[in-house]
Amino acid sequence: MAMKAIRVNEALNDAVPLRKPEMIHEAMRYSLLAGGKRVRPILCLAACELVGGEDTVAVPMACAVEMIHTMSLIHDDLPCMDNDDIRRGKPTNHKVFGEETAVLAGDALLSLAFEHLAVKTVNVSSNRVVRAIAELGSAVGSEGLVAGQIVDISSEGKRVNLSELEYIHVHKTAKLLEAAVVGGAIVGGGGGNEVERMRRYARCIGLLFQVVDDILDVTKSSEELGKTAGKDLATDKATYPKLMGLDKAKKFAGELVDKAMEELSYFDVARAAPLYHLANYIAYRQN
Amino acid sequence: MAMKAIRVNEALNDAVPLRKPEMIHEAMRYSLLAGGKRVRPILCLAACELVGGEDTVAVPMACAVEMIHTMSLIHDDLPCMDNDDIRRGKPTNHKVFGEETAVLAGDALLSLAFEHLAVKTVNVSSNRVVRAIAELGSAVGSEGLVAGQIVDISSEGKRVNLSELEYIHVHKTAKLLEAAVVGGAIVGGGGGNEVERMRRYARCIGLLFQVVDDILDVTKSSEELGKTAGKDLATDKATYPKLMGLDKAKKFAGELVDKAMEELSYFDVARAAPLYHLANYIAYRQN
Repeated sequence: MAMKAIRVNEALNDAVPLRKPEMIHEAMRYSLLAGGKRVRPILCLAACELVGGEDTVAVPMACAVEMIHTMSLIHDDLPCMDNDDIRRGKPTNHKVFGEETAVLAGDALLSLAFEHLAVKTVNVSSNRVVRAIAELGSAVGSEGLVAGQIVDISSEGKRVNLSELEYIHVHKTAKLLEAAVVGGAIVGGGGGNEVERMRRYARCIGLLFQVVDDILDVTKSSEELGKTAGKDLATDKATYPKLMGLDKAKKFAGELVDKAMEELSYFDVARAAPLYHLANYIAYRQN
Repeated sequence: MAMKAIRVNEALNDAVPLRKPEMIHEAMRYSLLAGGKRVRPILCLAACELVGGEDTVAVPMACAVEMIHTMSLIHDDLPCMDNDDIRRGKPTNHKVFGEETAVLAGDALLSLAFEHLAVKTVNVSSNRVVRAIAELGSAVGSEGLVAGQIVDISSEGKRVNLSELEYIHVHKTAKLLEAAVVGGAIVGGGGGNEVERMRRYARCIGLLFQVVDDILDVTKSSEELGKTAGKDLATDKATYPKLMGLDKAKKFAGELVDKAMEELSYFDVARAAPLYHLANYIAYRQN
């Protein structure tokens, strides 16, 4: 697992060399190489291996997903959005490079994700590359990540019920995780049934990821998290602990892990081990 | 030509239906369907036909290019960027929908461009679709449009020489036109030589487009242009008329048209007619 994270970091470092114009590449690298947990890329590589692919073929897909995740963080942190100053324990992108560069760095990463996937994926049929690109696009656009963000924004200060909250999280978080896992399975050569099973696994994990995030926000300090804690409460944002109570939110997280495990039981136990491990990691992480 | 523009408008309208969440789709449609000249999509379809393709196969590519062009305008107009209030004779996106929605509408259009190209291109080999996606990506990213914008921003208020100005325009404008033309030729089934000739044609046309834009900015009123005129002068921006003088800028525009025509002379005259016409249109347009 740690090995996979190192490979992903190396690949990301290579994917955005410090060429001219330097300012934009510095800004892109600053956020992309800021030491995230690389959960999405690792899931992508693990899904590829689960269906029998060499994990090298999924490295461009893994990088593409992380580029998109990074772009969403950069734009999310902008003054006109969440106006956040700290991210992963460091000043946010616009705090260091200015707002206009931060907007452009996000745009460049978003575009590079698709280009990188198209250009760097080798030993995979073009047909599968096109499918992976479509998968990635649907995770980001106005029925993916952006949909989640817009509904999230427009619901601030309003009463949000559980189904609206789930809509937000499915779109803001789960869809990109889904693209990572499904994309990994596609470039890995997975069959239709395998890909769909991976999709259901990813949906549980994606939602789980956000439920745990909400729980951590109310139970941990800023220092432990590497970002501003208690922010959801301060901004009166709807969260699982707020709507269900902390105990029920923890129980819900447990149910999601179980469902995810169930989907994995279809596959070879040894090959599925990393994905079992990742589900547990997401469920029980401390930051 | 007018027929092609109508088809592109219809295809764009279909590509972004008014589904939920409505706010983001309204914002996307507001700028995408604001009645641009559709020069890039028309060039794309014409390039496809020039190399012998049915123009229908290039419609998704044409739409993708226009989505990216629109996204660049929305982000460019943001308060932290050019801070523009009027675009195509209407209030800019953030003036109508707010800054956060404008950022997200741009992101959604950028992502949709790639997804649309991957999902909607039919009767073209996946291999060519992947090449077209790569072409589009390189036109947008940190060595394309974004590179042009970042250098443009960082040169404001500084003395810029002609080669720096050309760098800005090649990246801000010409690269996307190049992707439109080259992408059209790729999905249209063009051979290597044809694609490269189309690339050189596009480079002339792309630069021409910006030179003419600069000229119009100093010679026309806001009303005639449908956007704020004289803005380049007011913000002390480097332009061709400023660096060369208006007459030499006009002469330079003429040379670029001639070079573009030269590349077309390689092709069948009847088939190349729309591209001759477009070069003339770009050179002699009044807004």
